Amino acid sequence: MLRAAIVGCSGYTALEAALLLSAHPEVKISAATSRQADGSTLADMHPRLTGKTTLPVENLSPAEIAERSDVAFCCLPHAASAPIVSAILDAGCRVIDLSADYRLSTPSLYEHWYGEQHPDPGRLGQTPYGMPELFRDRLADTNLVANPGCYPTSAIVPLTPLVRENLVESQVIVDSKSGVSGAGRSPKLGTLYCETNESISPYSVGTHRHQGEMVDIIERSTSTKLDIIFTPHLVPMHRGILSTIYVRTKGGATANQIRECLATAYQDEPFVRVVPHLPATRYVSGTNYCDISVRENGDWVIILCAIDNLIKGASGAAVQCMNLMFEFDETTALL
Amino acid sequence: MLRAAIVGCSGYTALEAALLLSAHPEVKISAATSRQADGSTLADMHPRLTGKTTLPVENLSPAEIAERSDVAFCCLPHAASAPIVSAILDAGCRVIDLSADYRLSTPSLYEHWYGEQHPDPGRLGQTPYGMPELFRDRLADTNLVANPGCYPTSAIVPLTPLVRENLVESQVIVDSKSGVSGAGRSPKLGTLYCETNESISPYSVGTHRHQGEMVDIIERSTSTKLDIIFTPHLVPMHRGILSTIYVRTKGGATANQIRECLATAYQDEPFVRVVPHLPATRYVSGTNYCDISVRENGDWVIILCAIDNLIKGASGAAVQCMNLMFEFDETTALL
Amino acid sequence: MLRAAIVGCSGYTALEAALLLSAHPEVKISAATSRQADGSTLADMHPRLTGKTTLPVENLSPAEIAERSDVAFCCLPHAASAPIVSAILDAGCRVIDLSADYRLSTPSLYEHWYGEQHPDPGRLGQTPYGMPELFRDRLADTNLVANPGCYPTSAIVPLTPLVRENLVESQVIVDSKSGVSGAGRSPKLGTLYCETNESISPYSVGTHRHQGEMVDIIERSTSTKLDIIFTPHLVPMHRGILSTIYVRTKGGATANQIRECLATAYQDEPFVRVVPHLPATRYVSGTNYCDISVRENGDWVIILCAIDNLIKGASGAAVQCMNLMFEFDETTALL
Amino acid sequence: MLRAAIVGCSGYTALEAALLLSAHPEVKISAATSRQADGSTLADMHPRLTGKTTLPVENLSPAEIAERSDVAFCCLPHAASAPIVSAILDAGCRVIDLSADYRLSTPSLYEHWYGEQHPDPGRLGQTPYGMPELFRDRLADTNLVANPGCYPTSAIVPLTPLVRENLVESQVIVDSKSGVSGAGRSPKLGTLYCETNESISPYSVGTHRHQGEMVDIIERSTSTKLDIIFTPHLVPMHRGILSTIYVRTKGGATANQIRECLATAYQDEPFVRVVPHLPATRYVSGTNYCDISVRENGDWVIILCAIDNLIKGASGAAVQCMNLMFEFDETTALL
Repeated sequence: MLRAAIVGCSGYTALEAALLLSAHPEVKISAATSRQADGSTLADMHPRLTGKTTLPVENLSPAEIAERSDVAFCCLPHAASAPIVSAILDAGCRVIDLSADYRLSTPSLYEHWYGEQHPDPGRLGQTPYGMPELFRDRLADTNLVANPGCYPTSAIVPLTPLVRENLVESQVIVDSKSGVSGAGRSPKLGTLYCETNESISPYSVGTHRHQGEMVDIIERSTSTKLDIIFTPHLVPMHRGILSTIYVRTKGGATANQIRECLATAYQDEPFVRVVPHLPATRYVSGTNYCDISVRENGDWVIILCAIDNLIKGASGAAVQCMNLMFEFDETTALL
Repeated sequence: MLRAAIVGCSGYTALEAALLLSAHPEVKISAATSRQADGSTLADMHPRLTGKTTLPVENLSPAEIAERSDVAFCCLPHAASAPIVSAILDAGCRVIDLSADYRLSTPSLYEHWYGEQHPDPGRLGQTPYGMPELFRDRLADTNLVANPGCYPTSAIVPLTPLVRENLVESQVIVDSKSGVSGAGRSPKLGTLYCETNESISPYSVGTHRHQGEMVDIIERSTSTKLDIIFTPHLVPMHRGILSTIYVRTKGGATANQIRECLATAYQDEPFVRVVPHLPATRYVSGTNYCDISVRENGDWVIILCAIDNLIKGASGAAVQCMNLMFEFDETTALL
Repeated sequence: MLRAAIVGCSGYTALEAALLLSAHPEVKISAATSRQADGSTLADMHPRLTGKTTLPVENLSPAEIAERSDVAFCCLPHAASAPIVSAILDAGCRVIDLSADYRLSTPSLYEHWYGEQHPDPGRLGQTPYGMPELFRDRLADTNLVANPGCYPTSAIVPLTPLVRENLVESQVIVDSKSGVSGAGRSPKLGTLYCETNESISPYSVGTHRHQGEMVDIIERSTSTKLDIIFTPHLVPMHRGILSTIYVRTKGGATANQIRECLATAYQDEPFVRVVPHLPATRYVSGTNYCDISVRENGDWVIILCAIDNLIKGASGAAVQCMNLMFEFDETTALL
Repeated sequence: MLRAAIVGCSGYTALEAALLLSAHPEVKISAATSRQADGSTLADMHPRLTGKTTLPVENLSPAEIAERSDVAFCCLPHAASAPIVSAILDAGCRVIDLSADYRLSTPSLYEHWYGEQHPDPGRLGQTPYGMPELFRDRLADTNLVANPGCYPTSAIVPLTPLVRENLVESQVIVDSKSGVSGAGRSPKLGTLYCETNESISPYSVGTHRHQGEMVDIIERSTSTKLDIIFTPHLVPMHRGILSTIYVRTKGGATANQIRECLATAYQDEPFVRVVPHLPATRYVSGTNYCDISVRENGDWVIILCAIDNLIKGASGAAVQCMNLMFEFDETTALL
């Protein structure tokens, strides 16, 4: 059995990773760590896990994590993650990092979007982005995976094949709507029930870091730099992201051609469904699927993409990467 | 006391009109009509009204409605509305029509978007659009008002001053998000709780009728025809619309200039608030306010507009029009 | 104009008080205070108030509050409230205290339920409970009102007439369901959207302080001590309380007799509606109404009571008390 | 592979059965039937199933269903179900009936609660109730299982061991709260989003059929007839039931003894968790677990029980029964 640690186990992506891993026939959760460890168990922290695990929550050092584990799922906040990740790697354990720390290609991009120097700059540009649909051949051999961000997944998956085939103009509008779990489990005014229910609101308009991630990863995959205008919104629901993507096509490409391009690109992908109906987040909720549909309106083509932000947008993608890193069937525990 | 009838009283806009009118010091609800009248009262149909009215629901003819009333709020579906409206008008009672029937400028536009011949084509192009911010001087003398659609309100209010000042390019993307009440109170699979909760979904992409209304009314007000790309979405909330509007500016106009233009245009409007913070539908829920904010992102300016779809997007606007038609203070019952 | 201060203005009951008072024709909000005052305005803190008030949030002393105001609405947490309330009273300003500090009849009851000594014990037992339906004649002359708790309102209103008429056995089960706003606006894990949405859960089973308040106030009003078994639950909604109350009747009293007793007791009350239909919190949401209905099941009679926890269960009751204290029409700003 | 038909496939329990069965390694869905069959597929009807099945929806006769299947999951409304079920049985296929038709012990009980004569009275009293925790030894050999109702599951599981051990008085109050999916997927006013969101309401107070089912099954299992007072409520959530059960104990039994009795009774059950924390429906959502906790308040003991109404309260229990009927591991596809 593969031994998997969950590092930073108090949040929603950690819970989701624990649920997926506890259903994985080849994996045993070997440790659950938190700076808030107080003698309680992982099931005390997340009562859904009652009866599935008796693991204690511990405050372990990177060396202790590495000693007990073959792979660590790091669910720490950005900036806090990199020092732990690099120490776990140095101690000989492979890592899937769910933070943003190793996603971008260069230290200067990181500084631009995160406003601070990168604590481990040497690994930027060397670390594969954990999106099997684009970088599958990089994942089997790597010791470190930078797991994709939730919003970026919903934009990069549908846009990349179109850019690669030179079908779309470079100015692209990505209007995204997310459930509240994307904002994490730390108590904050903005994510209280009474501040989010019966309301939709935009946030970080023009300044959200995931815009940089979208542009960077699409450029890494296609050598083409898009000009993405990204606006995120908070929707009164627990989970799910819907991105409504507006593109103008090149050379008179029709919506049907756009749809065909995507259907062809992803025909063998187990978790991308190019569907005729309009997507809804409830159709993908609790799954690792990414649903994509295409429509047109005047000169524009509208691409609609729905994922579960906690699964395909976080822990499901991480388990998919783990399956590839350790040569399990890619879909194990994910269907 | 002004006598106001509510024609087609079973739905959400009718309930909202009844609540506003029952709080209006100069108005008495004179009749509530429905083809489903079965001897029950308006408060039986809408228990919120218990204690506020003992009015029966009746199946009245247009002549009976006109005899009892000075003004009729018609809350009927499109196409069903026009024949009733014209009969009430002919019987000498003024009408505020909350359906789409008299909003568009020409019979051919109506046919294009609604797929049938208009039953009363002579009044198209003659009927003022009930948006005081644009057409206040037309409302005092009219016998018929075409009350604006909910989505159009959230786009026309912020866009019109910018078009008038020639500040924006003609291609505009309007990505709108609405609460479920916009879909009405008739039982349908798509508006069941379990089909809409914990989910966001687009609908009518590229084909929604309100796109035509936005283009037509802005052209009527400014003589400029925009190319609007409108995408509506259903959000798990009862009420509220947020529109995220993407424009490119002309002649190097900045986001600040856009904001200034809107602040100036609406400085005397009692129900338009150009606000520095990002809007959220909960800030306008239950009110007649239209909140607008402006941001930028690369070459694009993003205008965010929030209204309550049932108030400023329907019955609140209707009461505002009534106040103007009968020379009450425009804000009566609305603050 | 009466000058009203809102003391502790950051929470939901304070916002609701501000909304009600800003619509009151005889009242002007004279101050809004918070220990978190940082130069921002009340509308910055609660964007719903944009355009309705330009009042700054200030960190005022009790003397400063009293100097500026004829009445203070104190929206502070229990224990923190009493010292401020007594200082404001001593400085000559009347107070409506929305905390629990002055509700119970004796210091020992307070110590039993709140686990600490009362900071101002002399006023306990002297302070009227702000429920006009039971204590209206005590409210005109008082300088201090103890505004009722939300759950207690939903139980005391329906139970008191039945106890007074000796119609029910002393063992009573009160199973209550509340929206999340009852838990306040301070960020806590338990009131995050993702911890409360799509879930119902009981809390404080057998230990909630409002059980003591129910028993004490009913005894104060009727000289009969009930044995109340109270269980609160958290429901995924912003506002509203529904209490399902199980009683056995004395002397063969039927559900009809129970209903008659309540209808008679409250026939002249402007905000109590004894209704034939089953109550729902949406019928009273945003109103000062208390809806009551009666059913039977075997030997038991079930009384169902719905209120808006923020209005009739907090700030609406407070404004109703203010209207009585200052001899305005009791329903002003509440219909 | 076992061939399983889903009869009446348009609703929520049918969707849930399809999801569970499509994840079951020993089962193949052999048919999906509906009177609304119109050439579309099961995945068209339930887009969540896209990519998991290409099965068409068909309007099959009982004989056709039986020919293709080893077991049929009947998800039809009560009264409509029995004639189809008996015809499928007669054609030689085993049936798990998710309707209420075969749950009660006698035709007269059925007539009392359902108001009509039973169409297949001979099987009443002969058909095991599909609750493995009580009737496991009856399930291996039966051709027909009466799958339990959702509310009854949440009351019968916690109450039966206590009745069997003679620990509780016969008068029991069951105050239950359910998500909206319990009301089915047929469009009705009462289950529209805008009629249920932001509201909690009781319904069928004193008259709900599940009260009869609770009493009957507990008597069948323990030979003791309880006097249950059952009140159901509709909660704004998709799925989940929480029942708050009030009992008085016999012979001075404490809450701890009640908890011990339940812990002992269910120590080997894979899907009953007697937990120390207070249950919440989100902890069991999407699972086949039944969480039970015990508290006390004065003379009463309060038992709290949470299930997912669509899984343990419907399709999960049905799959658990199927596993027993066909000698698969009881937990297959359910953990």
